[in-house]
Amino acid sequence: MYDRGLIPVVVQDFQTEEVLMVAYANEEAVQLTRTTGFAHFFSRSRKKIWKKGEESGHVQRVVHILVDCDGDSLLYQVEQVGGAACHTGHRSCFYRTLDGEEIAPTVFDPAKVYRKDHGY
Amino acid sequence: MYDRGLIPVVVQDFQTEEVLMVAYANEEAVQLTRTTGFAHFFSRSRKKIWKKGEESGHVQRVVHILVDCDGDSLLYQVEQVGGAACHTGHRSCFYRTLDGEEIAPTVFDPAKVYRKDHGY
Repeated sequence: MYDRGLIPVVVQDFQTEEVLMVAYANEEAVQLTRTTGFAHFFSRSRKKIWKKGEESGHVQRVVHILVDCDGDSLLYQVEQVGGAACHTGHRSCFYRTLDGEEIAPTVFDPAKVYRKDHGY
Repeated sequence: MYDRGLIPVVVQDFQTEEVLMVAYANEEAVQLTRTTGFAHFFSRSRKKIWKKGEESGHVQRVVHILVDCDGDSLLYQVEQVGGAACHTGHRSCFYRTLDGEEIAPTVFDPAKVYRKDHGY
């Protein structure tokens, strides 16, 4: 399943079905997610495993992990603690159109939640 | 936005919010999607643009295209024509758990829809 390296993970709110974010995982990140019950990923920029919410407290409790037909992407269905997944303060990372129009409000102030720039 | 090459695209049913599939796009695929109103992707295995449903007829009318905070993944919110996105006959490509348990039924018979193996 990881023969191409990292695989994309779609994170969806288990109750509202909103798509919250896309990140990447390797086998270790998926194992950590399964054993701890909290969403873990692999950061392409920092080249290490990260736990979603490790700094902000906005962790994701994973209810189900589903795999797609080809076995090369995952869907984490989660309970989003703190009500927002995006480091910008929006509920979902998908808060704007291709033309840059914002279609959703922020639900928290990033300056109060993060000590420094997040950087996926 | 395409500086890393292809970017993952999450496809979500616009009305039910079900996550239907993940595929990849380059700039041309996104432009074709915008100009035609139907979901287009770039096949990593066939190394060419493809229109979802070009063989099965199960095309996707794209209602919104959203981009994530980092500008490196997209969300196509679609109307799924034919009621199913997956070439296996399931509504969603995410129809089973990591342990292989199928959590959703098929809604069409692939043998009646595809003349040959699909192969994303």
